[in-house]
Amino acid sequence: MFYMDGKLQYPVRVEKPNPIFARALQQAIGGVEGEIRVCLQYMFQAWGCRGPAKYRDMLLNTGTEEIGHIEMLATAVALNLEKAPLSLQEDAAANPIAGAVLNGMNLRHILSSGLAATAEDANGVPFNASHVYASGNIAADMLANATAESSGRALAVRLQGMTDDPGMKDMLGFLVARDTMHQQQWLAVVEELGGHQAQLPIPNSHPDSAEHARFSYAFFGHDVSGMVPSGRWTEGASLDGKGT
Amino acid sequence: MFYMDGKLQYPVRVEKPNPIFARALQQAIGGVEGEIRVCLQYMFQAWGCRGPAKYRDMLLNTGTEEIGHIEMLATAVALNLEKAPLSLQEDAAANPIAGAVLNGMNLRHILSSGLAATAEDANGVPFNASHVYASGNIAADMLANATAESSGRALAVRLQGMTDDPGMKDMLGFLVARDTMHQQQWLAVVEELGGHQAQLPIPNSHPDSAEHARFSYAFFGHDVSGMVPSGRWTEGASLDGKGT
Amino acid sequence: MFYMDGKLQYPVRVEKPNPIFARALQQAIGGVEGEIRVCLQYMFQAWGCRGPAKYRDMLLNTGTEEIGHIEMLATAVALNLEKAPLSLQEDAAANPIAGAVLNGMNLRHILSSGLAATAEDANGVPFNASHVYASGNIAADMLANATAESSGRALAVRLQGMTDDPGMKDMLGFLVARDTMHQQQWLAVVEELGGHQAQLPIPNSHPDSAEHARFSYAFFGHDVSGMVPSGRWTEGASLDGKGT
Amino acid sequence: MFYMDGKLQYPVRVEKPNPIFARALQQAIGGVEGEIRVCLQYMFQAWGCRGPAKYRDMLLNTGTEEIGHIEMLATAVALNLEKAPLSLQEDAAANPIAGAVLNGMNLRHILSSGLAATAEDANGVPFNASHVYASGNIAADMLANATAESSGRALAVRLQGMTDDPGMKDMLGFLVARDTMHQQQWLAVVEELGGHQAQLPIPNSHPDSAEHARFSYAFFGHDVSGMVPSGRWTEGASLDGKGT
Amino acid sequence: MFYMDGKLQYPVRVEKPNPIFARALQQAIGGVEGEIRVCLQYMFQAWGCRGPAKYRDMLLNTGTEEIGHIEMLATAVALNLEKAPLSLQEDAAANPIAGAVLNGMNLRHILSSGLAATAEDANGVPFNASHVYASGNIAADMLANATAESSGRALAVRLQGMTDDPGMKDMLGFLVARDTMHQQQWLAVVEELGGHQAQLPIPNSHPDSAEHARFSYAFFGHDVSGMVPSGRWTEGASLDGKGT
Amino acid sequence: MFYMDGKLQYPVRVEKPNPIFARALQQAIGGVEGEIRVCLQYMFQAWGCRGPAKYRDMLLNTGTEEIGHIEMLATAVALNLEKAPLSLQEDAAANPIAGAVLNGMNLRHILSSGLAATAEDANGVPFNASHVYASGNIAADMLANATAESSGRALAVRLQGMTDDPGMKDMLGFLVARDTMHQQQWLAVVEELGGHQAQLPIPNSHPDSAEHARFSYAFFGHDVSGMVPSGRWTEGASLDGKGT
Ligand SMILES: [Ca+2]
Ligand SMILES: [Ca+2]
Ligand SMILES: [Ca+2]
Ligand SMILES: [Ca+2]
Ligand SMILES: [Ca+2]
Ligand SMILES: [Ca+2]
Repeated sequence: MFYMDGKLQYPVRVEKPNPIFARALQQAIGGVEGEIRVCLQYMFQAWGCRGPAKYRDMLLNTGTEEIGHIEMLATAVALNLEKAPLSLQEDAAANPIAGAVLNGMNLRHILSSGLAATAEDANGVPFNASHVYASGNIAADMLANATAESSGRALAVRLQGMTDDPGMKDMLGFLVARDTMHQQQWLAVVEELGGHQAQLPIPNSHPDSAEHARFSYAFFGHDVSGMVPSGRWTEGASLDGKGT
Repeated sequence: MFYMDGKLQYPVRVEKPNPIFARALQQAIGGVEGEIRVCLQYMFQAWGCRGPAKYRDMLLNTGTEEIGHIEMLATAVALNLEKAPLSLQEDAAANPIAGAVLNGMNLRHILSSGLAATAEDANGVPFNASHVYASGNIAADMLANATAESSGRALAVRLQGMTDDPGMKDMLGFLVARDTMHQQQWLAVVEELGGHQAQLPIPNSHPDSAEHARFSYAFFGHDVSGMVPSGRWTEGASLDGKGT
Repeated sequence: MFYMDGKLQYPVRVEKPNPIFARALQQAIGGVEGEIRVCLQYMFQAWGCRGPAKYRDMLLNTGTEEIGHIEMLATAVALNLEKAPLSLQEDAAANPIAGAVLNGMNLRHILSSGLAATAEDANGVPFNASHVYASGNIAADMLANATAESSGRALAVRLQGMTDDPGMKDMLGFLVARDTMHQQQWLAVVEELGGHQAQLPIPNSHPDSAEHARFSYAFFGHDVSGMVPSGRWTEGASLDGKGT
Repeated sequence: MFYMDGKLQYPVRVEKPNPIFARALQQAIGGVEGEIRVCLQYMFQAWGCRGPAKYRDMLLNTGTEEIGHIEMLATAVALNLEKAPLSLQEDAAANPIAGAVLNGMNLRHILSSGLAATAEDANGVPFNASHVYASGNIAADMLANATAESSGRALAVRLQGMTDDPGMKDMLGFLVARDTMHQQQWLAVVEELGGHQAQLPIPNSHPDSAEHARFSYAFFGHDVSGMVPSGRWTEGASLDGKGT
Repeated sequence: MFYMDGKLQYPVRVEKPNPIFARALQQAIGGVEGEIRVCLQYMFQAWGCRGPAKYRDMLLNTGTEEIGHIEMLATAVALNLEKAPLSLQEDAAANPIAGAVLNGMNLRHILSSGLAATAEDANGVPFNASHVYASGNIAADMLANATAESSGRALAVRLQGMTDDPGMKDMLGFLVARDTMHQQQWLAVVEELGGHQAQLPIPNSHPDSAEHARFSYAFFGHDVSGMVPSGRWTEGASLDGKGT
Repeated sequence: MFYMDGKLQYPVRVEKPNPIFARALQQAIGGVEGEIRVCLQYMFQAWGCRGPAKYRDMLLNTGTEEIGHIEMLATAVALNLEKAPLSLQEDAAANPIAGAVLNGMNLRHILSSGLAATAEDANGVPFNASHVYASGNIAADMLANATAESSGRALAVRLQGMTDDPGMKDMLGFLVARDTMHQQQWLAVVEELGGHQAQLPIPNSHPDSAEHARFSYAFFGHDVSGMVPSGRWTEGASLDGKGT
């Protein structure tokens, strides 16, 4: 069961509302790298978890934190939409900037939500829950979570670079930090479970006899020239310690 | 910001696990009548709310309750999937019932989630957040919410009729009751705001001069025979008290 | 079976074509608040109707009217796209306004449809028929329809506010009026069926014994502070007359 | 503007209701080969048509016919759902057939629509209007329409082969016939416009100088063996009479 | 099995990078008229082909060519995104053009892909594989392919008209030419199989007795005025030579 | 540019065709864990790659290998559909097993594709290209790829457990092995780039001053009881060596 306190996890201020930045922020709400996705992903992993209780608890804690991130971003979108232009300029020549702003807006911010956030990405594509990955395999899920936080942090960093609003830069500095933590949190579970050596290949419980092991540690070249790019993947012991 | 206690809002028991019922329950999780939808809908309405604080608070309270409903249903799906058949019967003739069960399952319950709930409906279609209605108009949103709870309660009632498992009947009896409450909760706001007389037409702030009022209170027949079905919509004063 | 007369239900004129307004109008065609949705919704409700014939007939009449609304809006989109810029400006500095217009267009209006309407919303997201609600329960469906017309009228009012084209304002004045009528038409059915007192909870045919009635009339607070927002939903008799 | 008469275009009878066949029929309603698609496709082509009025008129006539086909199929689905099992069998062993039927049903026919048709395909995937092709080029659109009627007729023929219900076979015999007509109707337009010789390549108005014609009539082999499959595409004059 | 050589099929140059044109080009990658679609469509038709090997081979050759077209366009998108503005202008008044460019961009090109192509259309809607048509009927599939190449060539021609960049005009001149070839390639198969006379109606293997032939060659008027548009579809022998 | 040889990468045999297993295999073609996804993902990463050529080359090689995996699985689906029941049993009582099979099939395998693979998952949901992750950040993309191969290998292992057909077990043994290789291949790049120590947090190029570092290494508890689950994420040095 869940509770709330009606407060934001971290302050959200906007000094100069910008409806285009409101559109950009939507990617962090309803985009594939966004907060609805990680929130639901950690929750469903927790609810389906059949392993040790501490992983389930951890997932539930962090999933609950993420609801608050959606809340912060939805608040930020609404603040950026304050004073947005609501009508097309009769005399656009007189005000090309306002015209360009309206043209670039997510029009659903005007037409559908009344100047508030929507559950969609920066292009207005609604969040699709097929992105909620919960495989029932703890190692696979931890990698999925680290992936989500990596693309999520890349997004937050890019959003921070896009704005010069002090309030928005501050809020994003907090969200970036949480993504830093969460990346390491999920990878720490893999380490705790023995790291690559113990976990790879994922899932690690498959009987070897069912796998054609002669294909398990070979890079296959598909260049008609026969050239094969070399690197760690063609050299040294395999990461699971079983191949060469 | 949000919190949890790791407990279910109401007990979830399954006496006879049934993977087909697990598939059916998914409709209440990720279907258009389901709990992810109402959860996000009430949250986004709250986060975009510019009206009196009490409506925002109420939305936030109930949105938070709904997360717990997803949790209960996800738990119920996992319990119904215990002991599900995992392999196609070599000799189906020997066990037509088990075969029929596997055939009718959401195969992603086996292949993708490892016997746990997914964020999709009874047909395996992922939840699509375009169903999160939050218009910025309180009356429109209250009707949307009452609608969601009406189709949601119809769904819960039908699920209850589909199963004879005492645990599932009990859990659904709770969820049905909450839908009863929530329907009236949203319609009570409309009543508090003056009811149909004051709120209709929604939105009620449009200048009359911008509407061609001669078309606002007439039923238009499109039957080539000229026949018009009569009822309250062709007779008596209009519900907003302005037309005839 | 259906027929047409090749005429518009109401005149559609555009004095100053505006491709950005063409994009905005798409929300009323293929958006969740739009005319394809209500058209299909009323039709599917009619085709699935097992109740009194007059409701089926009424649904069919109004569903048929809505096809004509799609037709009007598709015509309006095409007219607003007349003279749209088709190429990126080599010297954008010389014409920032035209550049801003092209930048803000739904590029599929140029690339995919040849300056005509598409079956998608203002962001270019195609209409998704999961929004066709037809539950088989007349009261639930009437609320769904009133909801659709409420968000639809909010949309039409906002579109009217966005344009200063006399022809577009006139057309939208008609569509707003029809939404006024349709809202009341659907709610009139609920009134005819006994209103909230008789219809709530929806569906109203569930045996009381299957519902845990002690949870049916209580507002649940989820604020960690224990604060509960009060209003009509915490005070007075329940709307169905059964709770307190 | 549109009208209806409340009658079916052709009689719809079901002697032995079959809920699995109801699921199959959904493909002809909301599938990519189905009637919602052609209905909207012909309508949008008509509404965007800037060419001779007779093509617009023809599109509008046939688009209007197609609404009636959705109506027939929705009726057929509802009839096939009469007496569908609504509950999971406590003692499945006693009735494996009924169990298998429920297992194979579109559960939304029970849970969401109350034994009526939905706007989705045979797998319960909602119709997606990105399939409404209307390019603004008459030749491209006629090919798109002939394609839709070809896959539509293949579907209707396969549905006819799947059932032994006399009523369903009769109804499908009608729909198959209409697809026969419509295929030829759209290709007749291409013939009237001069056939392949005049219309190819589509669009036929592009200045030759903008196309690198040396690549316009050559089959490119991508088999590493150098083998090129030969046929009419490697031999004889090109269909547009311009290449070799 | 497949191979590559790491080279582009035709040179891709961009002299003046334009992020808006990058957005437009996306339609040719992930749009319904685009290259992912034809690539997968020809592949799935080949892999499902049960007819003569030469058709399968031809499909596989051209499907393989199309991967290279995605590659060219993805390269073109990345080149057009070089030097794209990454931040909102603090002083938009000082640089309205750059502002308009950012406003009109697919923001995911900045936020999600790091200035590279995405698998979506010009509005940022991800490619949906329901557009991969492969019916198992060779004639239906050839029409579907000719349709795809017709809308694809219309798109490429419109893109060519939108840009004045010599490199982009050159690349599109190549892609237009390939679409010219491919249209005729697919229609050549229909001709080889006997043309309309032999293939219509599609599928051509249905027993006549199962079709109500009296409806197979009649144009049905649905205009309430009784007017029927006349043309090749109301006059002359049917294209399959069987009707009148 | 790409090439093919018309041969399968590894033999595909089916001894006992099983249409339900054909449905299950679809998850590996068009599911989020499937081969279309990894194929497009590696391709788009390669085409957008601005880093060292060897990573681009490696991505292109493996992306090209994956097309061949789709080909193998599509072949396996078609073989499993040989002799599938095409009609509903008039006398289901006489053959409950065949009835259960048809009921459990993806009906589009009969109705839409003519007994061949489709570009969709095990529930018939079409592949959606929003799952093609290509962020422009090499470390984020490598984690995304390792994630895809982990859930992909879990899927292949579960499919192998579902069948007792020797041919299918053999083919899946090959695909499982390739997933083993690919998991390690992508993680080897992270190792080559300095491992967690050098790469975390992802992206690793953000100026520290823009991040509120006091929140970067703290686990936040959201349990109302105050309980915090402890583990590697609450103890020891952070994985990037910067926090505690
Ligand atoms: Ca977060
Ligand atoms: Ca609920
Ligand atoms: Ca309307
Ligand atoms: Ca039809
Ligand atoms: Ca091409
Ligand atoms: Ca693979």
